[in-house]
Amino acid sequence: VLEKIEALLGGSTLKPAPGERWFGDDAAVLQAPPEGHQVVICTDAAVAGVHCDLELVSPADLGWKAAIASISDLAAMGASPWCLVVTVAAPPALGVMEVMEGAIDAATVYACPIVGGDLTAAPVAMVSVAALGMVPSGRAVLRSGARAGDVLALTGELGGSAAGLEALRSQLDDHRVTLRHRRPVARVTEGAAALRSGAHAMIDISDGLSLDLHRMADASGVGFELDRVPVAPGASRAHALAGGEDYELLMATPDFEALCHSFADDGLELPLAVGRIVADPGRRLVEGAVDQPSGWCHDLS
Amino acid sequence: VLEKIEALLGGSTLKPAPGERWFGDDAAVLQAPPEGHQVVICTDAAVAGVHCDLELVSPADLGWKAAIASISDLAAMGASPWCLVVTVAAPPALGVMEVMEGAIDAATVYACPIVGGDLTAAPVAMVSVAALGMVPSGRAVLRSGARAGDVLALTGELGGSAAGLEALRSQLDDHRVTLRHRRPVARVTEGAAALRSGAHAMIDISDGLSLDLHRMADASGVGFELDRVPVAPGASRAHALAGGEDYELLMATPDFEALCHSFADDGLELPLAVGRIVADPGRRLVEGAVDQPSGWCHDLS
Repeated sequence: VLEKIEALLGGSTLKPAPGERWFGDDAAVLQAPPEGHQVVICTDAAVAGVHCDLELVSPADLGWKAAIASISDLAAMGASPWCLVVTVAAPPALGVMEVMEGAIDAATVYACPIVGGDLTAAPVAMVSVAALGMVPSGRAVLRSGARAGDVLALTGELGGSAAGLEALRSQLDDHRVTLRHRRPVARVTEGAAALRSGAHAMIDISDGLSLDLHRMADASGVGFELDRVPVAPGASRAHALAGGEDYELLMATPDFEALCHSFADDGLELPLAVGRIVADPGRRLVEGAVDQPSGWCHDLS
Repeated sequence: VLEKIEALLGGSTLKPAPGERWFGDDAAVLQAPPEGHQVVICTDAAVAGVHCDLELVSPADLGWKAAIASISDLAAMGASPWCLVVTVAAPPALGVMEVMEGAIDAATVYACPIVGGDLTAAPVAMVSVAALGMVPSGRAVLRSGARAGDVLALTGELGGSAAGLEALRSQLDDHRVTLRHRRPVARVTEGAAALRSGAHAMIDISDGLSLDLHRMADASGVGFELDRVPVAPGASRAHALAGGEDYELLMATPDFEALCHSFADDGLELPLAVGRIVADPGRRLVEGAVDQPSGWCHDLS
């Protein structure tokens, strides 16, 4: 099976640099990042029946979503994606290759090659993706950097993924809506632009705006006033506030204008200003009302 | 739950370097390897019921084994372990924390800190571990470097893990035997010593000596003559030849004496010479008889 994956990857435009070795050995060998860079690493998993309903999305969608979740975590640091290693566990009948193909699609779109992996039988389909990135030394944008007075900004409207899931459940075949659930995108260029503009803090909206905003506030020891919740077409306010899996970036910046300039320089859609950071860590307002963290939680604690 | 893991890790002697960030953010930030080094990356998974029977081994053993499988892949390149990211998926009742504790134990023993991870509910327990290592540039010991005339050497006797599994199944409580199955070790120092001595090729015995030896021969375009199969105490020849999960290293070296000196310099038990590489790729002999690849295979193709 690993040979088949290598053949799939052989068609990719992404190729090992001289001296590198991808796949085919016990481990992959990679050139180190250029001087002045740090390494960024994260991992994310998608389990059929927990993160994804394979009655509603394809095995390839499962692979795509797991890869995007990890690439988005790199984006949320302002890091450049570097490479992925992908583990696919699935019942033989499911089509391990199809799951892997979805991950390869994402890897290709984000120029973040899959350099190694593992395939195994399992009673239930699961994908685990570890992503490596690089970032200029000391410049990674953490969750914990938000300061009173920072503007809160988003890379886009929210709730599309949750609305897409609802549409799929209702057997509505509105491609524009369902695609946001099946094939979310990672805001890699936006994350790098935010880093460049001097953003103080950043997090990707994986579990819902409310929950992830509270996480940023907790990590930074601050509060927030969110003035508005930008809602994606076809989505509700509840989808936008607590739906999750949109993978837009939430940024706290001392200079919203600089952020906009940085986005414009890269030809990106301008970020949306949605509120501000305040000093009082107990102050947590969404459209004037006290907000309890809401969003997507694993039932594990 | 991630907080609990951070607390567990807080007790470790492994600490982030200045400017590093482990856990607690979207991704971990690490200092790049020293100049003149390449990055090595691999991933390995263990699934309950496929790789491990949780009636026989504990959830902590599952975590240990998954971590060791990845660390051993680093060892088989001659790489120094650097860090791990660990995904644990498990039914809430199983004890996700116990699985993670096994992985943390392995990380501590091999000074290879867990810097990030993901935890999720799943109908079946599964651990996926991605491991990063570093190796002097251009020096990684591949599977494909074996040349006619090389001596084949092993870091130790084989079959202990398979014998241990059999003992567990027979409810024999011979700790010395069962430990080899529950808590295999990775030959990290040995792998580095092999690299230093100029070994041509290396692979870890994860799926059985026969299968992994054929893999090395296939990758190198050569044949082999294996004169003997070193059998671990309590194990049979079949265990040793096709049992797998021993994680001893198989090395092909042009200079067995140099290999022994390198091992002795590090205070290691001397490697065992077991055969030689021959030019004819069709010649595959074990103790004089033609060998068909045998070992542990996933049923996935």
